[in-house]
Amino acid sequence: VREEDIIDLFYPDTAADLDDCARVEDDRIVTTDALVEGTHFRLDWSSPEDLAVKLWAVNLSDIAASGGEPDWCVLSLGLPPTIEPDFLRRFAAALRAELRRDDCRLVGGDTFRAPVLLLSLTLSGRLERSPREPPRYLGRQGARPGDSLYVSGEPGLSQLGYLYLAGERPPPADPEQDPQYLAAVHRHRRPEARLAWARILRRHSEVHAMMDVSDGLYPDLQRLAAASRSLLEIDWRRLPLPAVARERVAAHPQSSDDLTDAQWRELALTSGEELELLFAATPGLTFEFPCTEIGRVVAADASDPGIRLNGAPWPVPPRWFQHF
Amino acid sequence: VREEDIIDLFYPDTAADLDDCARVEDDRIVTTDALVEGTHFRLDWSSPEDLAVKLWAVNLSDIAASGGEPDWCVLSLGLPPTIEPDFLRRFAAALRAELRRDDCRLVGGDTFRAPVLLLSLTLSGRLERSPREPPRYLGRQGARPGDSLYVSGEPGLSQLGYLYLAGERPPPADPEQDPQYLAAVHRHRRPEARLAWARILRRHSEVHAMMDVSDGLYPDLQRLAAASRSLLEIDWRRLPLPAVARERVAAHPQSSDDLTDAQWRELALTSGEELELLFAATPGLTFEFPCTEIGRVVAADASDPGIRLNGAPWPVPPRWFQHF
Repeated sequence: VREEDIIDLFYPDTAADLDDCARVEDDRIVTTDALVEGTHFRLDWSSPEDLAVKLWAVNLSDIAASGGEPDWCVLSLGLPPTIEPDFLRRFAAALRAELRRDDCRLVGGDTFRAPVLLLSLTLSGRLERSPREPPRYLGRQGARPGDSLYVSGEPGLSQLGYLYLAGERPPPADPEQDPQYLAAVHRHRRPEARLAWARILRRHSEVHAMMDVSDGLYPDLQRLAAASRSLLEIDWRRLPLPAVARERVAAHPQSSDDLTDAQWRELALTSGEELELLFAATPGLTFEFPCTEIGRVVAADASDPGIRLNGAPWPVPPRWFQHF
Repeated sequence: VREEDIIDLFYPDTAADLDDCARVEDDRIVTTDALVEGTHFRLDWSSPEDLAVKLWAVNLSDIAASGGEPDWCVLSLGLPPTIEPDFLRRFAAALRAELRRDDCRLVGGDTFRAPVLLLSLTLSGRLERSPREPPRYLGRQGARPGDSLYVSGEPGLSQLGYLYLAGERPPPADPEQDPQYLAAVHRHRRPEARLAWARILRRHSEVHAMMDVSDGLYPDLQRLAAASRSLLEIDWRRLPLPAVARERVAAHPQSSDDLTDAQWRELALTSGEELELLFAATPGLTFEFPCTEIGRVVAADASDPGIRLNGAPWPVPPRWFQHF
């Protein structure tokens, strides 16, 4: 069963319009995201605090990327018989700290027995009201021909962290002293929602479409292209390398642990749960936060919306297409 | 881990105020309820349509019992690898039919891999606005000394249906021809939210507190007592016997399948997922739907809020206290 088919079953009329959030009233949006043990996390990789931070971040990121502020949420908690009271105590304290920081109310929930730990949040947010203008919602639709495509931060580390933890990439000799290893594993465990940056962007009228990077830049760009019915051209050489990677190369030019530039760009394009902001806006803008222009919208109303990767030769690995 | 302790962890300041719904705005309420395979249902007992009806009913019932109308919902769907596309197609069609009938929008959701089938809905409702009065929310607080306690319908059948399906009570000789068996199993599979009755009650200013029967009349009365800080007196002889039971006794006075009156009353007090309305109101009211006065509020600000069962001797089975 493919996710697209499931979406078609439940939303036969609106499947093409699905966004990070649903707009339920003029100034109100809602999202829901779950973390399931075995599917999204392992208890030997993540602490209760990590899980609380990540559950909050993946939901908050949807609200932020749509132009909203968090308001209230409800928590669904599936507990296996083996759950420890101390685990719950730590998870609850960490979640409440996140909510307090971002001024959000936990108003209710549901608790039930489940075979594995299940954490599901439904988060409702408000769109900013200004005296002169209607509330502004930023969706995946709205990218215009001539727009540039921007991505915040340095995507790629979350997937690298997963590869380290899963043993699919051998850890460095001394992982606890290795900045790249530590940064990657930390990003995987505790992604950050870019609420502060989204606040800046939603006030720019030059920003026409926005979403967060949750499944990977490549599939998420495809969604932006589909929603905006546009053809996007991405210059893969512009994808930013993480600072830890640049510093590593400078310090140890010969290290066998280094990823090649092509490997870094593949990570940047496929790494999910980055929670970086991906947006279409007037070309040549600069922002007060890390942000890179990675391509442009070359055509609207395209008969075949999608992505063209510039800067060939680009070795497209077939597993890209199995992520989603 | 007890549910009360979990609630304390996440809602340290408001645990005592928890209700069927949370009131998130002046005229807006929200609830969430999940059905988990193995915990709440078995796939060999319930069809995809049964599960859609039940998932909708348990959520709608919370909104109805709080005085609201359903508005929008989001669906969290955990799918095991074994899920059949046909199962999903039937579940989605049945859920959409329920939503259409009750004029509710499915605005979004989340789909993920899980070890068992998980169905979780978050439902937001509106409280009725009238030109002259503020929106009216009906919670568990508000029962007044002198109020009578009323319950709609004939609780008990859902638990009996479960006992039949679980083999804890042997089915009758010809189950498919037995009205009591059929009614009980049907009620267990497809409980009904009493939205139409709740619409009548929320317009009565004589109704002071309301909730739905979701864990069993006995534990739910205890919650009403705690929220209203009241002592409740219940006359167990007044608990209504289901029509199918009365008809059965009339037709087969000697049948060995009969439950005794005491057994029926025990079922009425312990059966969960009944979704009947339990409310406190002025004594002596009559309504245009099946409804029974089962007791009264004998004291408010009680130092020891709770329930007194009248009509002793009443054999309180110890397993009552293990249900919750």
